[in-house]
Amino acid sequence: MAKKNSNKENIAANQNKASQQKRSNNSDKLKSKGNQSKKYSKQGFKSRNGSAKKYRKQKVDETPLRIAFLGGLNEVGKNMTLYEYKDEMFLVDCGLAFPDPEMLGVDLVIPDFSYVEKNADKIKGIIITHGHEDHIGGLAYLLKTVNIPVYGTKLTIGLIQGKLKEHGLLSNAKLFEVAPGDVVEFDEFKVEMIHVNHSIPDAIALAIKCSCGTVIQTGDFKIDSTPIDGGMIDLSRFAQLGDEGVLALLSDSTNAERPGYTESERKVGESFDVLFRKAGKSRIIVATFASNIHRVQQIINVAAALGRKVAIMGRSLENVVNISAQLGYLNIPDNVLINADLINKYPADSLVIITTGSQGEPMSALSRMAFSDHKKVEICPNDYVIISATPIPGNEKTVGKVVNELLKLGAEVIYEKMYDVHVSGHACQEELKLIMGLVKPRYFIPVHGEQKHLRKHAMLAEGMGIEKDNIFIADNGYVAEITNASIKNGTPVPAGKVFVDGYGVGDVGSVVLRDRKHLGQDGIIVVTASLDYETGQLIAGPEVVSRGFVYVKEAEELIESARKIAEKSLENCYYSNISDMNAIKGKLRDAVSHFVYEQTKRSPMVLPIIMEV
Amino acid sequence: MAKKNSNKENIAANQNKASQQKRSNNSDKLKSKGNQSKKYSKQGFKSRNGSAKKYRKQKVDETPLRIAFLGGLNEVGKNMTLYEYKDEMFLVDCGLAFPDPEMLGVDLVIPDFSYVEKNADKIKGIIITHGHEDHIGGLAYLLKTVNIPVYGTKLTIGLIQGKLKEHGLLSNAKLFEVAPGDVVEFDEFKVEMIHVNHSIPDAIALAIKCSCGTVIQTGDFKIDSTPIDGGMIDLSRFAQLGDEGVLALLSDSTNAERPGYTESERKVGESFDVLFRKAGKSRIIVATFASNIHRVQQIINVAAALGRKVAIMGRSLENVVNISAQLGYLNIPDNVLINADLINKYPADSLVIITTGSQGEPMSALSRMAFSDHKKVEICPNDYVIISATPIPGNEKTVGKVVNELLKLGAEVIYEKMYDVHVSGHACQEELKLIMGLVKPRYFIPVHGEQKHLRKHAMLAEGMGIEKDNIFIADNGYVAEITNASIKNGTPVPAGKVFVDGYGVGDVGSVVLRDRKHLGQDGIIVVTASLDYETGQLIAGPEVVSRGFVYVKEAEELIESARKIAEKSLENCYYSNISDMNAIKGKLRDAVSHFVYEQTKRSPMVLPIIMEV
Repeated sequence: MAKKNSNKENIAANQNKASQQKRSNNSDKLKSKGNQSKKYSKQGFKSRNGSAKKYRKQKVDETPLRIAFLGGLNEVGKNMTLYEYKDEMFLVDCGLAFPDPEMLGVDLVIPDFSYVEKNADKIKGIIITHGHEDHIGGLAYLLKTVNIPVYGTKLTIGLIQGKLKEHGLLSNAKLFEVAPGDVVEFDEFKVEMIHVNHSIPDAIALAIKCSCGTVIQTGDFKIDSTPIDGGMIDLSRFAQLGDEGVLALLSDSTNAERPGYTESERKVGESFDVLFRKAGKSRIIVATFASNIHRVQQIINVAAALGRKVAIMGRSLENVVNISAQLGYLNIPDNVLINADLINKYPADSLVIITTGSQGEPMSALSRMAFSDHKKVEICPNDYVIISATPIPGNEKTVGKVVNELLKLGAEVIYEKMYDVHVSGHACQEELKLIMGLVKPRYFIPVHGEQKHLRKHAMLAEGMGIEKDNIFIADNGYVAEITNASIKNGTPVPAGKVFVDGYGVGDVGSVVLRDRKHLGQDGIIVVTASLDYETGQLIAGPEVVSRGFVYVKEAEELIESARKIAEKSLENCYYSNISDMNAIKGKLRDAVSHFVYEQTKRSPMVLPIIMEV
Repeated sequence: MAKKNSNKENIAANQNKASQQKRSNNSDKLKSKGNQSKKYSKQGFKSRNGSAKKYRKQKVDETPLRIAFLGGLNEVGKNMTLYEYKDEMFLVDCGLAFPDPEMLGVDLVIPDFSYVEKNADKIKGIIITHGHEDHIGGLAYLLKTVNIPVYGTKLTIGLIQGKLKEHGLLSNAKLFEVAPGDVVEFDEFKVEMIHVNHSIPDAIALAIKCSCGTVIQTGDFKIDSTPIDGGMIDLSRFAQLGDEGVLALLSDSTNAERPGYTESERKVGESFDVLFRKAGKSRIIVATFASNIHRVQQIINVAAALGRKVAIMGRSLENVVNISAQLGYLNIPDNVLINADLINKYPADSLVIITTGSQGEPMSALSRMAFSDHKKVEICPNDYVIISATPIPGNEKTVGKVVNELLKLGAEVIYEKMYDVHVSGHACQEELKLIMGLVKPRYFIPVHGEQKHLRKHAMLAEGMGIEKDNIFIADNGYVAEITNASIKNGTPVPAGKVFVDGYGVGDVGSVVLRDRKHLGQDGIIVVTASLDYETGQLIAGPEVVSRGFVYVKEAEELIESARKIAEKSLENCYYSNISDMNAIKGKLRDAVSHFVYEQTKRSPMVLPIIMEV
């Protein structure tokens, strides 16, 4: 296990101030050690008059730092990065992705861990930047394979504990709490935690040092000068590191397409204040992301100020609220929170319900309310519903459906861009440029995003004067090999999508998905028959049973015709002395498929099953 | 058939000018007949000081005009409206809707025609407002049921002819060409065509007169003061009708959520001019909606001006371009259009390819290009791709995928709001209000849209001073019964979604879809066995075959265990003297389902098939 420069009791006692304090202590210490780190930046960061190239002639560290991308590139989700220097490795984040619609029946998608498994003995630990699913959701599956130490901030570790408990992994897990300013020291690597703003508290960026130089990985971040809690992102530390020299910057590309700045989370609180007053005598229902503690805090604050009680609905939200309150990240005044079972004991105008379902998820609390399927909440014209989120691409239609249903029940609904009821947790273009400007990296690697986000982020970097050759657009499985003289594409490592379906991890692949798609689109026709084992003569059947093809009661004639076709096919085989079972099945399948297509222009899966008696 | 005040030769000779001319002729004629129409408007349209209510005391026409909504409400698509007065009926539009993702395997959705079929002898015809799929796509299915006369403008009829030809219905169809200003006269109804702007040429609004009063149905429209062709929407006719008195306005709600004005189509041409020049030596590929003839015209114009040749890719686009060019709606200079097979004979910088696929449709030309699966076009870094459309809600992710893949191949891609490469075809809030202000209807019925659009449009109407009681938010199947004293909810009529899957119309319903969903999510396990007909003893099997459940080669053990469970279940039935086939199947299904769920936490469909030998 690595040595960790941390004092847990101290941090726990007064987290916010302590982390500020510790940061300066640690950075002093880093400074004293910092003489070893070379100053790439001033020359490495190409100035407008192009002074960068001459640096290439300097002495080169022959062993490259290798950064392997195991997830999070050309996709949104399952972020995972592996750092490798000499014989040492460590990981950053282990997220999940939610399945695309074509991944039928898949519950979630995790990274391919085969490279990690192969190098298990070299891996010193995993550092988690924050507690969102796309950064922690694969961790339980990883730890089942390689039980390495896990480092994260207090809230992050709290949320991870909850997940590991569900998987029965908590007792054996090696969890270590860190705070901004702390440095996790492995043999070759020293990793410093830097406070950043995001849509969940306690998010960190990482400054990763090895004798090759310093790499900064931002994690998910935004620059919020008036955050709800925890203070503004530690820009001065980014600046210090930039002045000391930064070899490479890996930065969050999520909002790279959006110009300008992301608004402060505080803006949303102001909107709540206006809207809660406008709601008048109505019951207020606010849907938001479960993990957005600061959003929940603001809803509670405004509700309390207006004398309304607050009830929490939705399992994930209850879970996060409990953990956050326990760990001191959520400050709930006395007598504000009420049990969700008791909402009907309070008049509508003294209630605020906070609920999950802001993305229109079909099983979520808000969705159930909208479709009159919620046990505790019946929507009525005296409801004032605020959807405090914007639809994630792909969810526009499901969110729209929930809005439509709520409106049909007579509720007033505030959604999309009607008011400032949501701000992003990710940096927009001006913030991204500001970080580049402070960090002044020699090499730039846009991460977290689809191709269009990575490209746009790369263009921003070019605009900031980073040479095109020093920008590395990677993909999952790519390895960036970095020395202080070059960045290049190393030998790729295995990386891909592993599907989790029920208990099964990785047992659903392309064949199963292809069959599911076929079954889902066209249904199935099963043709069964019993043949005499010796003579091959038909002795029972054929029977034709279909599912998902036609409504059988109205298509008896069609099914009976298909049965006759099957019977004829079997007779033909018998009289033609075809006795190979696969050949008979093939002929049966072709005959029935052809007939059905001619009749219906549909292509159900035809599954012949022949029993020899 | 109805009498039609039209002169086809005259119109065909000089369509644009003729329609202007005819409009004034016809409106003169209408004016002379207009004395019969009561002046609802001045009192009916509630002025700010509330002079409307006293009008209720006037003489009332006892027979209400009935407007039945057969599609297009609380949905986007399959627009269809039925007008009924005394013993006469006629229809407006007959569109299709594209299936939602949960409508597995469904090709398209059409309205329920049962009310139309029931009243076939009363229906005098159908008037089509324009040639988009959501207004004409159900027509072929309707005409198979009731072969009524069809009225539409020249381009609309041209596009309908193409569709009916595919369905083998053209020779028997009764198609009548009309032009703005024409009046179609049935016995009770007179319907005047009014020129409007939209994203397809030749779109019309309808002024529908019966002795009950005048109803205006806008169809899809926008106000474009600088359209590419055909002239600005005939606002003065809306104003005249408003002054004469309008009983009810049915208006397009598609963009009711958007403030301001929709930009002119001409704006897009200006963007093309800028972007085509920026493209430099690159090959230009523009994706757009097949039916947006004016967009295609602008692309051709700019290409021709810059000396580039134009090739058309994608079946629907080729089809629409051919029809439009033949009918004179598309003006293609000589030697500009080249055969799509010959594109490789021209240098990249002298080519523009217009293609389908602006919504990321998986089988479209652009999608095939992006996934390197197009026969004629291989995308390379010298390609400059412009997606001249915004994603329709629900298509964001598929469009994003196409953009990502094009970028990976090195192409430059202009998409979403990067430049003004798309404008909507629908009126925004200020335009909607302007039409209300001109028409001054007594009753207002927002149509074409989901609940959120209808509500927003209703709120705009309230803001314009239309009384809340005079606004009718309908749903499919609703009937608005209107007299000059009241609007009320009449007895509903059958309306719903009829699914087309292959040749089948309406044979896929909720049972089949539920099975498809189950099969698609979890796959199927078929358990077959042969029992002795007399003793009930197992004589062959059981066999267990699965599809879409697990990858069988890696799960032989699981399948074999399931087989043993099935065997045991059958033995238990035998020894317990259970001989009812349904009971045996039920026990078999339960045993296998339970075992499989315990082992995998998945619930495939279990289908037991038992043959008696």
